[in-house]
Amino acid sequence: MKTNPGRFFEDYRIGDTIAHAVPRTVSGGERALYHALYPARGALYSSDEFARSCGLPAAPIDDLAAFHVVFGKTVPDISLNAVANLGYAEGRWLKPVYPGDTLRSESTVIGLKENSNGKSGVVYVGTRGINQHGETMLEYVRWVMVRKNRLDAPAPDPVVPDLARVVRPEALVVPEGLDFTRYDFTLAGEPHRWGDYAVGEQIDHVDGVTVEEAEHMLATRLWQNTAKVHFDATFRDDGKRLIYGGHVISMARALSFNGLANAQMIVALNGGAHANPCFAGDTIKAWSEVLDKAETPAPGVGAIRLRLVAVKQGAAPFALKGAEGKYAPEVLLDLDYWALMPL
Amino acid sequence: MKTNPGRFFEDYRIGDTIAHAVPRTVSGGERALYHALYPARGALYSSDEFARSCGLPAAPIDDLAAFHVVFGKTVPDISLNAVANLGYAEGRWLKPVYPGDTLRSESTVIGLKENSNGKSGVVYVGTRGINQHGETMLEYVRWVMVRKNRLDAPAPDPVVPDLARVVRPEALVVPEGLDFTRYDFTLAGEPHRWGDYAVGEQIDHVDGVTVEEAEHMLATRLWQNTAKVHFDATFRDDGKRLIYGGHVISMARALSFNGLANAQMIVALNGGAHANPCFAGDTIKAWSEVLDKAETPAPGVGAIRLRLVAVKQGAAPFALKGAEGKYAPEVLLDLDYWALMPL
Amino acid sequence: MKTNPGRFFEDYRIGDTIAHAVPRTVSGGERALYHALYPARGALYSSDEFARSCGLPAAPIDDLAAFHVVFGKTVPDISLNAVANLGYAEGRWLKPVYPGDTLRSESTVIGLKENSNGKSGVVYVGTRGINQHGETMLEYVRWVMVRKNRLDAPAPDPVVPDLARVVRPEALVVPEGLDFTRYDFTLAGEPHRWGDYAVGEQIDHVDGVTVEEAEHMLATRLWQNTAKVHFDATFRDDGKRLIYGGHVISMARALSFNGLANAQMIVALNGGAHANPCFAGDTIKAWSEVLDKAETPAPGVGAIRLRLVAVKQGAAPFALKGAEGKYAPEVLLDLDYWALMPL
Repeated sequence: MKTNPGRFFEDYRIGDTIAHAVPRTVSGGERALYHALYPARGALYSSDEFARSCGLPAAPIDDLAAFHVVFGKTVPDISLNAVANLGYAEGRWLKPVYPGDTLRSESTVIGLKENSNGKSGVVYVGTRGINQHGETMLEYVRWVMVRKNRLDAPAPDPVVPDLARVVRPEALVVPEGLDFTRYDFTLAGEPHRWGDYAVGEQIDHVDGVTVEEAEHMLATRLWQNTAKVHFDATFRDDGKRLIYGGHVISMARALSFNGLANAQMIVALNGGAHANPCFAGDTIKAWSEVLDKAETPAPGVGAIRLRLVAVKQGAAPFALKGAEGKYAPEVLLDLDYWALMPL
Repeated sequence: MKTNPGRFFEDYRIGDTIAHAVPRTVSGGERALYHALYPARGALYSSDEFARSCGLPAAPIDDLAAFHVVFGKTVPDISLNAVANLGYAEGRWLKPVYPGDTLRSESTVIGLKENSNGKSGVVYVGTRGINQHGETMLEYVRWVMVRKNRLDAPAPDPVVPDLARVVRPEALVVPEGLDFTRYDFTLAGEPHRWGDYAVGEQIDHVDGVTVEEAEHMLATRLWQNTAKVHFDATFRDDGKRLIYGGHVISMARALSFNGLANAQMIVALNGGAHANPCFAGDTIKAWSEVLDKAETPAPGVGAIRLRLVAVKQGAAPFALKGAEGKYAPEVLLDLDYWALMPL
Repeated sequence: MKTNPGRFFEDYRIGDTIAHAVPRTVSGGERALYHALYPARGALYSSDEFARSCGLPAAPIDDLAAFHVVFGKTVPDISLNAVANLGYAEGRWLKPVYPGDTLRSESTVIGLKENSNGKSGVVYVGTRGINQHGETMLEYVRWVMVRKNRLDAPAPDPVVPDLARVVRPEALVVPEGLDFTRYDFTLAGEPHRWGDYAVGEQIDHVDGVTVEEAEHMLATRLWQNTAKVHFDATFRDDGKRLIYGGHVISMARALSFNGLANAQMIVALNGGAHANPCFAGDTIKAWSEVLDKAETPAPGVGAIRLRLVAVKQGAAPFALKGAEGKYAPEVLLDLDYWALMPL
């Protein structure tokens, strides 16, 4: 058997480290495609000149593009036989990615817990994205429910990692040299600075995008994510292609420019849930809530913790969960992240 | 309110200059996408070697891509609440754009005229695209009809700028170094030179492209044009997404290669009308008419003034306007521009 | 008549060489688009670092992207009035293509045979892709059936070239410096080396992609292939746009990563048939068969000859031809090529 059947629950061992294929060199091509696929307008990622005025050597590749490149590589080893992508935690962006950088990924199994039905289990991995200098540029924990192949395989001793609910502000890594003291709010698109946002404030980002099959497939392939369910309309009984959750993340983040134009760099992913599936024809809109604020040691740079919620057509304003604590059916994504913003 | 409500008619003042967000660095990625989105084949924009043989340092980014980048930035400030895009005039390309260049835009309000209904008015702006050296690389005048928000806002003193109907040949700016004396007609794709075109000549460009939702949205996002009507199928009552007029311009110009392969560089935009809306599923075809010809001081370089008409399925040959002077319903675009062509 | 009517059968002469327009400089943009359009994961084409560890200066542009660039240029001169694309032979990749390279194409007419109906004939051309250094980087023979325009044009003396059924292993050109002795199978995605494949072995590549109109048009335009039938839904009586055969080739080759991840470089095209047309909505899957194996003089580098078959929904496992020797209706492509693989 030459093709990859993927790993099943019984194939994972605590402490195993999996080096993922295939390394990828990014260029201005990936940046241009990111801008074509999403209404991304963050000035720091759009203009080399703007990035230089903020102390960076050039405009980095979008943080979420870097995330997708790292994440996509893990799919054949981690989630090919996954039933569900359950959560993210302790994500940190450690180094910006620039055109010319080459990224690879590796994951360590840090938790295993078989389900009581004996047919599947939860696998926790700590994933690292690594650049051509051997530097970890991104790290995050993800857990997925994976099917068993041999139902008689013995259940492993359960190990559930103790994961931080939120990345502490002191643990946020501000890119070397970043300086927002001469930040140009006009060129960035909005006048609102860190001090203008209040914890608890909610922002409806207004704009919406109706998504197409061609677009989400282009995006998902660009990150070399190979999960059949995104590409093959004959795979699911209903003939629908499930849109990669990361496509919804990037779309919602890009839509959040309208109201959060200065939430420039994503530095941490505290958690996230893909609340409901998204399909071509859905119209994605987004809203945000300010969850927390923190200072950083970098000049002029504050940190803001945001909830980013993606919804589809029919959602009530700022809808999230029903009385019983379950996500409303129109909610696609509930993401919790830290971004850097000029003071 | 953190999101951008856009400007209304009463928010504009004669003489105001608006610096538009977001600056953009272009790369080979934007060029590749332009070639994927449109059947663009101009040799000067396709091959560094060909461009060098014409005295340029490398192949520039397509002139219309440069236009779209500059134009897209103006949308949130100029046309977010526009009822209609009424016209263009006095457009001039002053510097080619190369991969690595960073573009920003600014507009000055040069005309204001409230409509007699008191609910809207016409805003005239002079827009400049500016590169990282502070050089203006593109300028044009555009006028749009914009809604009033406060209907009781007083009407401004009407100012209607005196706009040239055509950019005079002497005002055309030929890129520094451009020399068509060793122009390779074989590699460029057609043998027809400046002298082979006669004023009044009409050319049916034969080829057609049926447009898709995914394509026009990729294009429109690439230029960071954020107008909802292009992306959100729930926005209009008829559930249709209106295709960005610039997408039709680029499609028609690219189709015009077949018959005008040597009309290489666009140097002026004399005027233009988006005669009817375009929607996904429409099949765009194009025809051109030679309106004028002029000499230039550059070696081997002539100028040709062209009408470029985009039509959709069902159009009669060379259809433009009906007896009453109204555009035929199949006409999408009527554009008047100057291009440079080898003598 | 300024537009290109294309050549008809009677317009070709044995020995004529046609220089094709338009030269094209490729960049990281074309690479990124190739990865977005196809699930391409070959490590050598994805990572500069991986390519360097194999003795190349950087990651080349995918071999099939290079093929499409060269092929696309020939369409206006060779196949604009073609009734059918009949075959390929003696294809050899002679030099890898890197970002920054500029490619042009030329074809020599090597065979002509009028059909007995007197309405069309078969044209054989030897096509060469040439880089900016004047080096031939790709060569192949193609033959197409082309309509006559003047039915009374005399039939030429028939010349049918004697074409090799298979490129001999000794004629394969291994890129200068290629060395697979330190090949990293983990980063490449699969452990299977040249010695693990047996002649006669068949591999079902498992994954499938349902194709969309927007995608195949983006791809076909990217290669500056202008054949109307791919773009204009009003052109065929059935309102369908025929998908460029090269799109199917690239899709199938990319799908074959799953099972042939280490069949890294395509060095020869022995033959190929577009067995049935492909339309948007079809779900493409692929299987391969090992036809032959050979050694090469390069360190650690073996050659493997593969049949690559693309099929659509409804195909039986490893379906190819029926009893009467005709391709099964679900077979889209039957391609025969040589690739390089680590020993």
